Amino acid sequence: MRTVKIGFIGCGRMGKLHMANLINSVPGAEVVAVSDPYIDTNGGREWCQQRGIPNISDSYENVLNDPQVEAVFVCSSTDAHCPMSLAAVKAGKHTFCEKPITYDVPQILELQKAIEEAGVKFMVGFNRRFDHNHKAVAEAVKRGDIGDPHIVTVSSRDPEPPTMEYVAVSGGLFYDMMIHDFDMVRYVTGAEALEISAVGSCLVNPKLQEESGVPDVDTAVVTMKMDNGCIAVINNSRQAVYGYDQRVEVFGSKGMVSDGNDLHSTAAIMTVDGCRTEKPLWFFLERYTQAFIDEVASFVDAVANDKPVETGVVDGLIPVLMAKAATESCRAGGKFVKVERP
Amino acid sequence: MRTVKIGFIGCGRMGKLHMANLINSVPGAEVVAVSDPYIDTNGGREWCQQRGIPNISDSYENVLNDPQVEAVFVCSSTDAHCPMSLAAVKAGKHTFCEKPITYDVPQILELQKAIEEAGVKFMVGFNRRFDHNHKAVAEAVKRGDIGDPHIVTVSSRDPEPPTMEYVAVSGGLFYDMMIHDFDMVRYVTGAEALEISAVGSCLVNPKLQEESGVPDVDTAVVTMKMDNGCIAVINNSRQAVYGYDQRVEVFGSKGMVSDGNDLHSTAAIMTVDGCRTEKPLWFFLERYTQAFIDEVASFVDAVANDKPVETGVVDGLIPVLMAKAATESCRAGGKFVKVERP
Amino acid sequence: MRTVKIGFIGCGRMGKLHMANLINSVPGAEVVAVSDPYIDTNGGREWCQQRGIPNISDSYENVLNDPQVEAVFVCSSTDAHCPMSLAAVKAGKHTFCEKPITYDVPQILELQKAIEEAGVKFMVGFNRRFDHNHKAVAEAVKRGDIGDPHIVTVSSRDPEPPTMEYVAVSGGLFYDMMIHDFDMVRYVTGAEALEISAVGSCLVNPKLQEESGVPDVDTAVVTMKMDNGCIAVINNSRQAVYGYDQRVEVFGSKGMVSDGNDLHSTAAIMTVDGCRTEKPLWFFLERYTQAFIDEVASFVDAVANDKPVETGVVDGLIPVLMAKAATESCRAGGKFVKVERP
Amino acid sequence: MRTVKIGFIGCGRMGKLHMANLINSVPGAEVVAVSDPYIDTNGGREWCQQRGIPNISDSYENVLNDPQVEAVFVCSSTDAHCPMSLAAVKAGKHTFCEKPITYDVPQILELQKAIEEAGVKFMVGFNRRFDHNHKAVAEAVKRGDIGDPHIVTVSSRDPEPPTMEYVAVSGGLFYDMMIHDFDMVRYVTGAEALEISAVGSCLVNPKLQEESGVPDVDTAVVTMKMDNGCIAVINNSRQAVYGYDQRVEVFGSKGMVSDGNDLHSTAAIMTVDGCRTEKPLWFFLERYTQAFIDEVASFVDAVANDKPVETGVVDGLIPVLMAKAATESCRAGGKFVKVERP
Repeated sequence: MRTVKIGFIGCGRMGKLHMANLINSVPGAEVVAVSDPYIDTNGGREWCQQRGIPNISDSYENVLNDPQVEAVFVCSSTDAHCPMSLAAVKAGKHTFCEKPITYDVPQILELQKAIEEAGVKFMVGFNRRFDHNHKAVAEAVKRGDIGDPHIVTVSSRDPEPPTMEYVAVSGGLFYDMMIHDFDMVRYVTGAEALEISAVGSCLVNPKLQEESGVPDVDTAVVTMKMDNGCIAVINNSRQAVYGYDQRVEVFGSKGMVSDGNDLHSTAAIMTVDGCRTEKPLWFFLERYTQAFIDEVASFVDAVANDKPVETGVVDGLIPVLMAKAATESCRAGGKFVKVERP
Repeated sequence: MRTVKIGFIGCGRMGKLHMANLINSVPGAEVVAVSDPYIDTNGGREWCQQRGIPNISDSYENVLNDPQVEAVFVCSSTDAHCPMSLAAVKAGKHTFCEKPITYDVPQILELQKAIEEAGVKFMVGFNRRFDHNHKAVAEAVKRGDIGDPHIVTVSSRDPEPPTMEYVAVSGGLFYDMMIHDFDMVRYVTGAEALEISAVGSCLVNPKLQEESGVPDVDTAVVTMKMDNGCIAVINNSRQAVYGYDQRVEVFGSKGMVSDGNDLHSTAAIMTVDGCRTEKPLWFFLERYTQAFIDEVASFVDAVANDKPVETGVVDGLIPVLMAKAATESCRAGGKFVKVERP
Repeated sequence: MRTVKIGFIGCGRMGKLHMANLINSVPGAEVVAVSDPYIDTNGGREWCQQRGIPNISDSYENVLNDPQVEAVFVCSSTDAHCPMSLAAVKAGKHTFCEKPITYDVPQILELQKAIEEAGVKFMVGFNRRFDHNHKAVAEAVKRGDIGDPHIVTVSSRDPEPPTMEYVAVSGGLFYDMMIHDFDMVRYVTGAEALEISAVGSCLVNPKLQEESGVPDVDTAVVTMKMDNGCIAVINNSRQAVYGYDQRVEVFGSKGMVSDGNDLHSTAAIMTVDGCRTEKPLWFFLERYTQAFIDEVASFVDAVANDKPVETGVVDGLIPVLMAKAATESCRAGGKFVKVERP
Repeated sequence: MRTVKIGFIGCGRMGKLHMANLINSVPGAEVVAVSDPYIDTNGGREWCQQRGIPNISDSYENVLNDPQVEAVFVCSSTDAHCPMSLAAVKAGKHTFCEKPITYDVPQILELQKAIEEAGVKFMVGFNRRFDHNHKAVAEAVKRGDIGDPHIVTVSSRDPEPPTMEYVAVSGGLFYDMMIHDFDMVRYVTGAEALEISAVGSCLVNPKLQEESGVPDVDTAVVTMKMDNGCIAVINNSRQAVYGYDQRVEVFGSKGMVSDGNDLHSTAAIMTVDGCRTEKPLWFFLERYTQAFIDEVASFVDAVANDKPVETGVVDGLIPVLMAKAATESCRAGGKFVKVERP
C-alpha cells in the first residue's frame, strides 16, 4: 500500500481529531504539514511537534506549496471552508472539506467547476454515512431487503442547545443541524427531495429568537416528497436531555429497517422499580468515534487507489439547497417549497 | 356490584366480539336483548340462543323498547351508527357506539344535543385507548415523566389493504384509518390540533384511484401543529407486510416515552444468519384482544357507578374534524389547513 | 365439533380457573358436574349455579357416577390428586389431573396400570408447556434450528416465598417448585436426565429450616447429565423481588434459542436517569393466563378427537423421580445421584 | 502527567496489540524497548522501527538492563510468562504479565514473594474486567443495586474451537478458557469459591480426546459454592457458531443485573420472515478492543500515580487454583472438590 502524504489547514478540534485518527488508525496515511493562523497561541504547534509533523506554520500557503502534500484536509473555521477548499483544489491537491462547504450556492458551484478542471478528488465530511448503524440501514435498503421505500423517519436530537452566540451566526437549525439529516435521507433512500415542508417552534427555549436575535427555531419537523414517490420526515430537537438521539427508520413494500442508538453498556438492572438500561452516548464525538476514523480512511483509500469518494461536492451542495427550501417553508408557515436545483 | 343489563343493535363481527367479551369477561354485565335485521339469515339468532340471551329479534325497536335494557351497544353497519345512537339516546339508554359515529358533522352535533338532553352516558369505541402499551405511554406523559411534549410520532400501518369495494365507500384513508391515530395524538398529548398538513401517495397500489374510483391514497404522512406548541406526525400505510404495526413515541422536555408492538412470543433464535425474533401480531383483533375487553368493561363501569366515560361524543367528533382538514390538505398538495370547530 | 361433557372434583382456585376457561374459551367443552367437600361453605355452589352447572354436590362420587360426564378434572387438594384420579380412571373417565399427581412413586405406577387397563386419556397439568414463549423455544429445537442441544439453562424464580406452613408440607423446593422445571428440560430437549447434582441454600430466609421445621432450601441450582450428552442447569429462587422470572435458553451445535418474560407493556421511558422498561408479570396466573386456556383446550381436543395427550402419566412420573434424586443430592452436598427408573 | 517508559518482552500478537494501544491511545506511555527471540525473522524489528522504538533486540536482557525502562510487559510465549515476570520483578521493574502467569502454583508463590520483596507493581492481564458491559454489572453489584448476590450465571463461548495441537498443550478447557470466567465470578461477586463441581463433554468434537491425545472436554458446566453463600454457575463451549458469546447475570436479594453481547450494529430488519438483528461480534479482539486499551491504561495509571493495580498476582493465582479443582472434579464425574489455598 502506498503512503498518502497529507496537509492540514486548521488545527482546531476537528483538525486534531482527523489528524489523530489518520496517525493512529489509518495505515498508509502520513500527516506532513499543518497550518493554522493561531498555531503559536492555541498549543497547536506543540501538539503537532509531539507527533513528529515536519511542516508546521501559521499560513495555509505553506501547506499548499509543500510539494510533498498530495491531499489537504480543510478544517478551518466554517467561513473559510470554501475559499480554502478552492485554493487547495486549484493547487492540484485532493481535498477533504469539513461540512458545510458554505451556505452560498454560487460559491459551491464555482468550487465544483474548479474540481472538475483540476481533476482532483473532493470529499465533504458527512461522518454519519460511516456510522455502523446508519450504514447497516442504508445497505439493507440497497440490497432490497425492504423493497421500495415508502416512508422514511429520521429522528435527530442533540443533547443540549448551543449558545445564543452560536445560534446567531449558525444560519439556523435547518442549515446547521438538519443538514446532516437531509444527507441521511438521501443516503438511505438513494432519492432526491422534490418539495419540502417545514414547521418549527421554540420549545426548548421560548426566548430563543429574542436572545439570539435571529428568527430561528429549536424544534422542527420537516416533510419531504421524494422523487421516487416516498415520503420522508425528519424531526430535530436542540435538546434531548437523555443524550444524543440519532435514529433512522425506512419502511417499504417488503418490510422495514431501523436502527437504534449505541449505549454505554448492555447492562440491564431489574428491581422492584422496573428494568433500567443505559442512555444513548452523550454526543457526536462519542457516538461517531469510529465513523470519524472510517470517514478519513475512506478518503485516503479513494486517493491512494483512485476510487470515487463517498460524498462529493454535489453531496455537499444538495443538502444546502434542501436547507434553503426548509428555511423558506418554515418562515411561510409550512407550505411546500420546491427544492430548486441551480 | 350491581348488574347492567345490555341490549345490542347489530350482531355482526363487532357485535359478537363485544357480546362475548361482556359475557365472558365483564362481571356485572348481562346481555339481555339483541337485534339485527339479518339475524335469521346470518346465524345470529343461534349464536345468541347458545348464550341464553332472551330477547332476540330483527328489529332494533325491540331492543329499545325492552324495559330491562339499561344500556345499548350500537354495532350496526357504519351508516346506521348515528341514527341508531340517536334513537337509543332518545329512548333514555346509556349508549356505546362503535367508531365512527358518522362523518357528517351536523348529525354528530344533533346527537351531542340529544345526549345532553337525555342525560345518559355515551361512549364511542376508540379501543386503542385501552391498549396496555398506548395506555402506558399516555400515563407516563400525564405523570409528567417526559415533561412537556415537543414532538409526537404515531406509526400506524395495517397488514394488508382493504378491497377496492371497501375503499370506494370508506370515506378515504384519513376518515377510515387515520381517525384512530388522530384520537391517539389527542390521547397521549391531551392537546388539540390547530392546523393539519397531509401528504399522501398510492405506493402500495399505484392503481388505487383508478380501481377504487375515488381520490384516495394508501400511504400518508400528516403533520399537526398542536395547541400546546408541540408538533405531531402520523404516518399510515395500508400494507406493512410484516403485520399490524402500531407504535407511539412522545418526546418532551424531560425525556421520551415510546412503545412497541406485541409479539407472538419472546423467543429469539441466534444462528450464523443472525438473531431472529417474532413479527408483530397480525391485525387489530390479535393486537387489541384485551383492549376490547377493557373498553367494554370501562363502559359498564361508567354506567354502573356513574363515572365519566373515557371517550365521549366530543372524542367522536373531533377526529372527524381532523380527518376533514387532512383530506382537504392532501388534495391541496399538503398546505396547512385549520381544524374548524363547529 | 362434538361436545365433551366434563365433571370437576375440586372447586378451589385451580378448579374455578379451569372451569372458567373451559366455559368461556373452549368451544366444545361443557361443565356438567362439580363436587367439592366444602362446596356449601366456600361459595362454590353459588359460583357454579351462576354458570348454570346442573350437578353440584359435596361428594366426588356424584361426579363419577354422573353418566353424562365423559371427562373429569381432578383439582382437589394435592394429597387427593392420585386417589381421585385413580377413582376417575377406574370409573372409565378421561382424566385431567392437576400437578403433582403425588410424590409417591408406587401410587403413580398403580395409576399408570389402571390407565392402561381402562384405556382412557390421562393428562397431567404441566401448564408451562402451553406457554407461547416456552413452546416457541421447544419448537425451534424440534425443528432443528439450533442443531443438537449442548447446554440448557432454565431460570425459574417466584416473586415471593410461600408461608412456612406451606413449606412444611410442600415436600421441599425440588418437589414443589422445581418439578415444573424438570418437566421443562424434558420438554425443550426431548431428552432424559441420567444423573443429577443439586446444591441449595437458605438465602432468601436464613431461618427457613428453623421456621419451617423441614430441611428445605429457598435457592437452588441443579445440574443434569442428559442421555443425549447435553448438560442442563436449573436455577430456582423463592423470591425474585421484580416478579415471576421464567426463562429458558437452549444452546446447541447450530445456534441458540432463548425466551424472555412477558411484560405489562412495551413502553420505554428514557430520561436523564436512563431507560426504564417494565418488570415481568407478577406471578403464574398472570404469566400463564393463556397457557392455562390452551392446556385445557388441548385436553378437550385429545378427548374429542382421540388424539394423544401432551403430558401423560409418564410425564407426571419422571419429574418426581428427578425431584427425588435432586433432594438426595442436595442433602448429600451436591454429589451426582442417578435418576432411578422403577 | 509524567511519562512511563515501557519495555516489551515478546513481540507477537498480544505484544503488538498492547504496544499499539499504548502508543495510540494511552497518553503518558512511551514504548522504548522491545525484545523477542524471533524479532529478526517474524517482522517484529521492522514493525517496531516504524513506530520509532529505539531499543529493539532478540534478548529480553536488553529490555531489563535498559535503565530507561520503568515498566515491563511480558507478552512472551505462555511457558515463559512466569520466568520472564520473575526476572523483570527482580530487575526492579513494574510488570504487566499476560494471563496465565503459569499453571504451576509454587512458581506463582515464588513470584508473589519476589514482588513483595521488590516492592513493584505487578498486574495480570484479565482484560474482561475492563469490558464496559461486565464492568457495569460489577459496579451495579458493588453499589448494592441488586442486594446480596444469590445466583450467578456466566455464559462464555468461543466462536470456534482451537486446533488439536493447541488443545494438546493448553492444559485443558478449565485452565485455558474457563480461567477468565473464574476471574469474572470473583470480579462480579467479590466472593471466593469454596468448592467446585465440574461436568464436561466432547459435544463439539466427539473425537476431541482421541485427536488431541489429552483428556479434555469442549463443553462444560461448573457450579461453585461461594464463601458468601451464593451459588455460581459457569457454562463454556468451544464453539458458538453465531460468534463470541460472553454474558453475565447476577441475581440477588434486591434484583438482577445482566449484560448482553455487543453487536455489529443496532439495525433491525423486519419482513414477512420476522425480525432479524445482528450476531455478536466474532471474537475477543473485536469484543474486547476497548477493554484492551483500558487495561493497559489502567496499568500505566497505577505505575504513574502509585495506585493499586486492578488485578494483582493473587488474582492470577486463585483462578489457577479454581481450574485445578474443576479439572479434578470433572475427571471424578462432577463431585464437589475444595479449592485448596496454599
